[in-house]
Amino acid sequence: MPKNLIDVAAGRKKADLVIKNATVADVFNGVYMHGDVAVVGDRIAGVGKYDGETEVDGTGKYVIPAFYDAHLHFESVMVRPSEYLKLAVPRGVTAFNADPHEIANVCGEAGIEFMINDVAGIPADVHFMMPSCVPATGEDMSGCVLDGDDVKRIIAKYGLFGLGEMMNYPGVIGCDDDVLKKLGAAEIIDGHAPNVGGNALNAYLCGGILTDHECESVEEALEKTSKGMFVLIREGSQTRNLKTLIKAVNKRNLRRFLFCTDDRNIEDLKNMGSIGNAVRLAVECGMEPIDAVTIASLNAYEAYGIKKCGAIAPGYTANFTVCGDDAAQKVEKVYYRGKLVAENGAPLFDVKPADAKPLYGSVHIKKIAERDLDFEFKPGMTVMRVSPDTVVTEAATATKKDGLNLMCCIERHKKSGAIGHCYVDGFRLKGGAIAQTVGHDAHNITVLGDNTRDMMLAVNELGADGGLVVVKDGEVIGKLPLEIAGLMTDMPADAAIATRKKLLAALERMDYNKQIEPFMLLSFLTLIVIPDVKLNHKGLFSVDKWKYVYNG
Amino acid sequence: MPKNLIDVAAGRKKADLVIKNATVADVFNGVYMHGDVAVVGDRIAGVGKYDGETEVDGTGKYVIPAFYDAHLHFESVMVRPSEYLKLAVPRGVTAFNADPHEIANVCGEAGIEFMINDVAGIPADVHFMMPSCVPATGEDMSGCVLDGDDVKRIIAKYGLFGLGEMMNYPGVIGCDDDVLKKLGAAEIIDGHAPNVGGNALNAYLCGGILTDHECESVEEALEKTSKGMFVLIREGSQTRNLKTLIKAVNKRNLRRFLFCTDDRNIEDLKNMGSIGNAVRLAVECGMEPIDAVTIASLNAYEAYGIKKCGAIAPGYTANFTVCGDDAAQKVEKVYYRGKLVAENGAPLFDVKPADAKPLYGSVHIKKIAERDLDFEFKPGMTVMRVSPDTVVTEAATATKKDGLNLMCCIERHKKSGAIGHCYVDGFRLKGGAIAQTVGHDAHNITVLGDNTRDMMLAVNELGADGGLVVVKDGEVIGKLPLEIAGLMTDMPADAAIATRKKLLAALERMDYNKQIEPFMLLSFLTLIVIPDVKLNHKGLFSVDKWKYVYNG
Repeated sequence: MPKNLIDVAAGRKKADLVIKNATVADVFNGVYMHGDVAVVGDRIAGVGKYDGETEVDGTGKYVIPAFYDAHLHFESVMVRPSEYLKLAVPRGVTAFNADPHEIANVCGEAGIEFMINDVAGIPADVHFMMPSCVPATGEDMSGCVLDGDDVKRIIAKYGLFGLGEMMNYPGVIGCDDDVLKKLGAAEIIDGHAPNVGGNALNAYLCGGILTDHECESVEEALEKTSKGMFVLIREGSQTRNLKTLIKAVNKRNLRRFLFCTDDRNIEDLKNMGSIGNAVRLAVECGMEPIDAVTIASLNAYEAYGIKKCGAIAPGYTANFTVCGDDAAQKVEKVYYRGKLVAENGAPLFDVKPADAKPLYGSVHIKKIAERDLDFEFKPGMTVMRVSPDTVVTEAATATKKDGLNLMCCIERHKKSGAIGHCYVDGFRLKGGAIAQTVGHDAHNITVLGDNTRDMMLAVNELGADGGLVVVKDGEVIGKLPLEIAGLMTDMPADAAIATRKKLLAALERMDYNKQIEPFMLLSFLTLIVIPDVKLNHKGLFSVDKWKYVYNG
Repeated sequence: MPKNLIDVAAGRKKADLVIKNATVADVFNGVYMHGDVAVVGDRIAGVGKYDGETEVDGTGKYVIPAFYDAHLHFESVMVRPSEYLKLAVPRGVTAFNADPHEIANVCGEAGIEFMINDVAGIPADVHFMMPSCVPATGEDMSGCVLDGDDVKRIIAKYGLFGLGEMMNYPGVIGCDDDVLKKLGAAEIIDGHAPNVGGNALNAYLCGGILTDHECESVEEALEKTSKGMFVLIREGSQTRNLKTLIKAVNKRNLRRFLFCTDDRNIEDLKNMGSIGNAVRLAVECGMEPIDAVTIASLNAYEAYGIKKCGAIAPGYTANFTVCGDDAAQKVEKVYYRGKLVAENGAPLFDVKPADAKPLYGSVHIKKIAERDLDFEFKPGMTVMRVSPDTVVTEAATATKKDGLNLMCCIERHKKSGAIGHCYVDGFRLKGGAIAQTVGHDAHNITVLGDNTRDMMLAVNELGADGGLVVVKDGEVIGKLPLEIAGLMTDMPADAAIATRKKLLAALERMDYNKQIEPFMLLSFLTLIVIPDVKLNHKGLFSVDKWKYVYNG
């Protein structure tokens, strides 16, 4: 095979495939060059003057390395990973560091195994990370506990790529024994350290953490890069850091930045793509296309130590797109390991979905009565204030109940009957309720509304399989069932989009703060590793103080 | 140990060592920052605010990652590697990719083993590469033949770092079976492909070659980087490419460049240093000090896939210098793995020299008579034209003998009696001869002079051990014995410098083109992989045409 590759590169044999006369990204020097791209088997033989068994006219076209999403959770898109990839690969993304953190928090190892099996045979490099925080904290009650020994065993059993985002930064910094055991189980460790800086960040990094995708300011990003971290510029659906963080990037430190989506909803994925969308935005912010393309490709491979990938160069893996533009916005053809795998937005590959039935029926709760949800408002009490475009909340003091919503978090794995309650400011939902089985990271039931009757109806409608529900004035007006672990629908992507469209139309009929994306935001209001106050099944929790504001 | 490191980084424990209040290189962002550098064991805990068991005042000082010489031959300095390191480490260079190519061509595996043993215990990362070209070509007659099987075996036996410069680029491009076997024996493969470009370069790279240190123009460097090569900017004693190649470097492609010395003489090493000298020159050419420092440190570690090295950052290996300036020209202290190993230019470590006696007496020739050296000049014959500052020669046609020198290459390993002859233009040596046992890459005897009597005397003076000899008007006026394989003296560095000083004083008394460094240049006039014409033991050889201009 090297011999064959050398023979073709030297011009002694015809290539299998040649993109003739194309403009080709040189991600090493940051320029576009011109030539024929020759491919043999799964490798690029070179850019030069070549003939091929198959020739594709590249006149006026750009050949660009396929993109790499450095951190994502497939679960966020609410369809199976195989359905996700049928949308993402045709947009030119062929590498993914996927952390099955959500499903692991519901189903443990069985969930991880399902995700791995579901993508088998798909033409993409899906690097599954081992979820590091199941549960996310000792305060969470998720469906499963995976300790340091489990982490080590599961990484070895499935040959996982590394350890997923280590959100338990206090555990790292404080040298928690089980956390250190987890850190010792992998060479590649993704980080998650919002607002951690100074000596605390030094300590976190001494634990071996490689990346961070939680930066919210230029200063934070530059401190993290200065300490050797690779900073993942995240552009998700709810959390959008690109326009801020892109200002931290210059030609000199470019190599220390990557792109990721983290959490993206299916409409955004289908309509705007994932990493391609980040490239587009970066260019809109003034970055040269070739620089954005480099961040989206070579940088990620280099950061993760994957050799001979992410560039159009001799001996490199032939993962690339043929595009109508220099920022890979008009992706016409996608090649993975030298094979054409998507064309004009459509996948040319088959998927073999894994059996998800064993992961159905993941909701285990006692029957809920209205009084279980009810919660007395006391003037002067602490409430959770939410804002658009961020999952960071504020602890606020409320003098009256008007304009607030009631929110409950119902434990749904062990049928414990535990329910946490609080009031939320900023959502401004009137005349109904929304409920869901997606609630980071324990994925207990979250329900929010302005009356307990609609809230109860919404929770009951979730049933044993779970999903998303909208109730207005005593009537269920929208629903997306999420049979797989209460996180993903078992529908194909198009059916899911159609069903979600109805759900979103139902939402549209509701009266609430329309700057907010309700289900996405609600799903993060239980995540007690992101400041300032969050609600879990025990009560309102202060992340900064690491204690409950109140229980109940 | 990670626990201890985290404890210190977090500020819960005192560091072993703190450089207080220093200006610290941030090679990731390309700026200098300010703080205390904390060290625990062999690791950096972080830059911040720290206290230590030992504290060094860094006020007004710079903390800079120790440098990496990406490609060199210790043999060129003509002292043992341990003597080399006693000079180089105090100048702030603590990592070396050393290719024992010269000694392997004389002594084979025994030579490689000697080099490895000689540096044992020295505080530096000496990465020995496996010489890939012993002999350099099928036309050479060196002391040893190491084929693909030998290469594989020796790499495994000694845990060598990779395959040394693959000079046989026609063998790679042409898919020579034994060359492919060598390429298959290592992951890291250094290249050597002067003036190779286009499809031929693509083919060479498909063989898995990572680096090149033979670029002579900006265009060549940019083509090589565009194809994924790391370009080593070489600044040796004879071959000095920095001032040209530095123009190829910009902020965007900076990461694709490294520094190396390749071949450096002992005076330059002692007086100007090695990689520090390259940094100085780069800055003189207008590069910002932090960029030159980055090329000299982080870039090399990244290119070779060595993690957590080459920066002052949490968890990184504590190899750094404390300097009086921002380009590491005034190196005051050198730390290797957290230990102070040199101060104010003096090593603080002991060496345990390996036994070199078995490598003495490497010259095996029949007795030489004047007539063996004689060679008839014929008007119109092809002669070798040499120029200062390059080892590339030209094939020229000479109409008369005046002003030319006679040069002979005498096979010295197998006592074969083979002697090649030619005339050399440009050296302009009068009234004497110089001879040596250093002659790349077979290290046969090279002798050059204007009369066969002085030439014979010079050859005889070399004796069984070899060395460098200067003869003037029938008298030996200078000599440096090179007992170890005829390549290195067994004297300490200072004695070698003193002896070489006398030798160079003797040279000074000779009449020749003083723009030339005679011994260095002469040693390259037998290297038939560098254009255009060279002399080996069989005759004058055209590198471009890959055939003899004439035998004899």
